[in-house]
Amino acid sequence: MNLIYYPGACSLADHIALIEAGLPHKILSITREKKTEDGRDFLSINPKGYIPALELEDGTVLTENQVILSYIAEASGKLLPKEGFARWRVFEALAFMSSEIHGGYMPFFKDYPEPEKVRAREKLAKAFAILADQMEDKPFLVGEEMTIADCYLFWVLMVAPKSGVELPENLRRAFERLRGRPSVAQAFTEEGLS
Amino acid sequence: MNLIYYPGACSLADHIALIEAGLPHKILSITREKKTEDGRDFLSINPKGYIPALELEDGTVLTENQVILSYIAEASGKLLPKEGFARWRVFEALAFMSSEIHGGYMPFFKDYPEPEKVRAREKLAKAFAILADQMEDKPFLVGEEMTIADCYLFWVLMVAPKSGVELPENLRRAFERLRGRPSVAQAFTEEGLS
Repeated sequence: MNLIYYPGACSLADHIALIEAGLPHKILSITREKKTEDGRDFLSINPKGYIPALELEDGTVLTENQVILSYIAEASGKLLPKEGFARWRVFEALAFMSSEIHGGYMPFFKDYPEPEKVRAREKLAKAFAILADQMEDKPFLVGEEMTIADCYLFWVLMVAPKSGVELPENLRRAFERLRGRPSVAQAFTEEGLS
Repeated sequence: MNLIYYPGACSLADHIALIEAGLPHKILSITREKKTEDGRDFLSINPKGYIPALELEDGTVLTENQVILSYIAEASGKLLPKEGFARWRVFEALAFMSSEIHGGYMPFFKDYPEPEKVRAREKLAKAFAILADQMEDKPFLVGEEMTIADCYLFWVLMVAPKSGVELPENLRRAFERLRGRPSVAQAFTEEGLS
């Protein structure tokens, strides 16, 4: 399968998940002009125009970050509890990070007017507090094992400084722990990040 | 299980899904002051403070609309293809409607300044066009059977007029078909909607 990504963008979560899960894959970057590095028009692959997109062997294309992460977990049998309510907690955390945090970053990514940034910071601070309550002092966001929720968590925490919102202490520590994983180092190298 | 809802809000999707799936349930409304109709403080049930929340028999609370919809499908064995890639298309559609459409309604729900509404309308028009391409002339958004994606679709289409963005013709027809279902009529009656 091919992960179509932009360096350092939210597709980094899927990239880390693919490495952690040990699934054979290629990564294909796109330019700001939406050409893939193998010379295709990205809009012909994903008409929505945004990354990540996961291109399967038969040409089927799956989109939406949380769904691609779930697909990686199901395809590999890894990074997701197989039973019990923890599985739902993983999906719940992904949906929450997507709408309340990732969505809240838009004013900073797109440099919207200051009042929108002020409002977004309030929303983000509240969302980080909820995430911190869920994290407690556990090694990972849901339970004792790494899940796809942590892959997305790493990216949302990495980007947090752009918003100017300070992270709760336990989330800062979680970020550092994840940053130290070989999968993350490998993904950074492969995406040309420092 | 108890679905905690606000009349006419996005929890309507879950309410319709519960009825379609035939799962035994109660619905509990909350006031604008976040008290449940059985007199509890909603923040003590869901610290995020937003609906929907699904309270299970053992007191466990699940949040996030798309995740509650998936839980209803799994608990009932209905409203979701059991195998094949269509299952992923349902999850993908839920995530897309959540971030690109539901998220895009915020400026209208909260009456944000006009430039934000203009920007949101552009985003919504693009998202409706993508949804219309996916719908084609099929009876439901994913395949020949109703799924949880249609439950959420009904609500996002119902709310569209608030944004002032005109719906593509095939989505208008899809809305009317869904509006005519007994489950939708029942949910409207139970929520006190006209």
